[in-house]
Amino acid sequence: MSGKTFLLAPDSFKESMTAKEVCVAMEQGLRRVYPEAHFIHVPMADGGEGTVQSLVDASGGSLHDKEVTGPLGKPVMASFGLLGDGETAAIEMASASGIHLVARDTKNPLITTTYGTGELIRECLDRGVKKILIGIGGSATNDGGAGMAEALGVRFLDEQGRDIPRGGGGLDQLHRIDLSDADPRLQDVEMVVACDVTNPLCGEHGASAVFGPQKGATPDMVQQLDRNLSHYADVIAEQLGRDVRDVPGAGAAGGLGAGLLVFARSELRKGVEIVLDYTELERKAAEADIVFTGEGGIDFQTKFGKTPYGVAQAAKRAGKKVIAVAGYIGEGIETLHDEGIDAIFGIVPGAGELSELLAAGPENVARTCENIARVLKFAD
Amino acid sequence: MSGKTFLLAPDSFKESMTAKEVCVAMEQGLRRVYPEAHFIHVPMADGGEGTVQSLVDASGGSLHDKEVTGPLGKPVMASFGLLGDGETAAIEMASASGIHLVARDTKNPLITTTYGTGELIRECLDRGVKKILIGIGGSATNDGGAGMAEALGVRFLDEQGRDIPRGGGGLDQLHRIDLSDADPRLQDVEMVVACDVTNPLCGEHGASAVFGPQKGATPDMVQQLDRNLSHYADVIAEQLGRDVRDVPGAGAAGGLGAGLLVFARSELRKGVEIVLDYTELERKAAEADIVFTGEGGIDFQTKFGKTPYGVAQAAKRAGKKVIAVAGYIGEGIETLHDEGIDAIFGIVPGAGELSELLAAGPENVARTCENIARVLKFAD
Repeated sequence: MSGKTFLLAPDSFKESMTAKEVCVAMEQGLRRVYPEAHFIHVPMADGGEGTVQSLVDASGGSLHDKEVTGPLGKPVMASFGLLGDGETAAIEMASASGIHLVARDTKNPLITTTYGTGELIRECLDRGVKKILIGIGGSATNDGGAGMAEALGVRFLDEQGRDIPRGGGGLDQLHRIDLSDADPRLQDVEMVVACDVTNPLCGEHGASAVFGPQKGATPDMVQQLDRNLSHYADVIAEQLGRDVRDVPGAGAAGGLGAGLLVFARSELRKGVEIVLDYTELERKAAEADIVFTGEGGIDFQTKFGKTPYGVAQAAKRAGKKVIAVAGYIGEGIETLHDEGIDAIFGIVPGAGELSELLAAGPENVARTCENIARVLKFAD
Repeated sequence: MSGKTFLLAPDSFKESMTAKEVCVAMEQGLRRVYPEAHFIHVPMADGGEGTVQSLVDASGGSLHDKEVTGPLGKPVMASFGLLGDGETAAIEMASASGIHLVARDTKNPLITTTYGTGELIRECLDRGVKKILIGIGGSATNDGGAGMAEALGVRFLDEQGRDIPRGGGGLDQLHRIDLSDADPRLQDVEMVVACDVTNPLCGEHGASAVFGPQKGATPDMVQQLDRNLSHYADVIAEQLGRDVRDVPGAGAAGGLGAGLLVFARSELRKGVEIVLDYTELERKAAEADIVFTGEGGIDFQTKFGKTPYGVAQAAKRAGKKVIAVAGYIGEGIETLHDEGIDAIFGIVPGAGELSELLAAGPENVARTCENIARVLKFAD
């Protein structure tokens, strides 16, 4: 009983707690019932917002700031993580090129660029890392990753040999891709791209049609952007001999998926699987008696690659029970039991203002975990 | 495992579900995990609002309407229960004489009367019951129960031998109490009064000072009402030989506690204990493997005689584990673990409008109980 080991592997609770803070609150509650237990904290993430923070926290790494070119060309302060192993960096493209950096009335995927994401990659290369984990959700861009590549020395030239304008709107002028000044480290570093969508680069399921509108594209702009990405894919195929047009995930982040595949040594993987691997969650689950996970919200979509689902899959491979807690429990959670989340509890104590509930996150996680532990203890 | 027996003994969730409906929702959730289990439903109450409904439901009795005199003299439709044993009635005084029957701007404890409560008692006597369980919370009155007694034939006369006016304001004119026409059945029927307060009839902790203001009494009125109840107690002591002034609970419901002690064969008891006894909860808990309880709200006050506390006490005497669920979890619930409530879970799925949460009560109770059962099942 006193020797129980709990593996705590939650995602962050958005706007309330980082994943590390959730771990601390979970332990606080569980320890009231199992004061002698052993607790393994693994702050988790699924490749989305908070992934860098969680990986830094999970590995004992460090977070760094870097001024880069924002999606609209103005400088923004972005961040990246150097992980505890000393050879891996973690980036969220949204930190440099995210939609949250663009005011509603200035949204324009004809001009937004991934250049800043490329600058972040370059900074990591300068730090000497051998591997970069890069989450590509939440982009403001539709440039096929051309901006990213440009920041790393790739030149995109028009018929007159001039650099084409940045942004998805300029790609129709692309005549030649010049790799002569491309950063050679791009072919050495291992890029692991967290990508949970399978959209191709072009067409009705492509980047422009599916994600363009939320980035500010009108129906006409969607057509223009799609044509441009198609031309971009043609030039890449002709001149570089890579046809990425229909690779699943090529259309992620406005085609940054395609850009990373073409210009770097990249592998696209589900975000949560990258984090599971990096944190060795399955091995840690094998050492535990029971696994706790959680996320701000849990619903039927959780099984499409969210953290609690991934944690449950890893824990099941280790033969462990999994309990999840959440600030919001939506429709269809009963389908998650079949996916390995044995039990799911809400942490909210009652009707209340969202802002107050967000502020009270830690105590509500602690209270809920304590009471779950009290039921677990029935069996001791 | 399949032979598990669950005792379901919740209070109502006010404005959301009757206690019986909570039982149904609990079973629904638990049955998803334990389809073969045996479920004992005991809709509970603590003497407050919903007690008659719960006792009717628990005993398989019936609910009846009766038009009586409201607290301000106008007719109101009140209800009472005839319980399944065929010889017990259940009344809530608030149904006939409650504060909810008085509009805010007409609150006036100088004139509000318990006459309607007496009419309800008379109706029950006419039905031939041998025992009346009566909850006396939520009153609008401060008449010492004189109105109740008047409805049952007791006369309260002034110096001229005329009936004094009804309400706490008329008691100063009381000169003589005439029992010659008092209903003789009052001395046969056993009145069990659910009373969770220990206030005396008069003085700084008395009915007028403590409860008068919430019934609309100004500071001057409080003094007048207190003097009048004191005079009332004097007349009772002199003429009937009963001094109830300092009996704990005499000051409950504006002195209705005192009136019931004087004019009927009454015993004042804690509400939840009456219900525990009537429902034989301890015996039923002994037959169960685990006990579920709950209430709309649970907080540190729960241990002052609310249903989950009472259920836990009975369950502990039977040596059983107790799990509570609640729509609202307030401060200090950790103190309840020492009182026998082993674990407490909120049912609310996230931030939301109170009205929606109240409407979704059954599914939230079911989901929460299902997930608790899933954890219980770890031990099977």
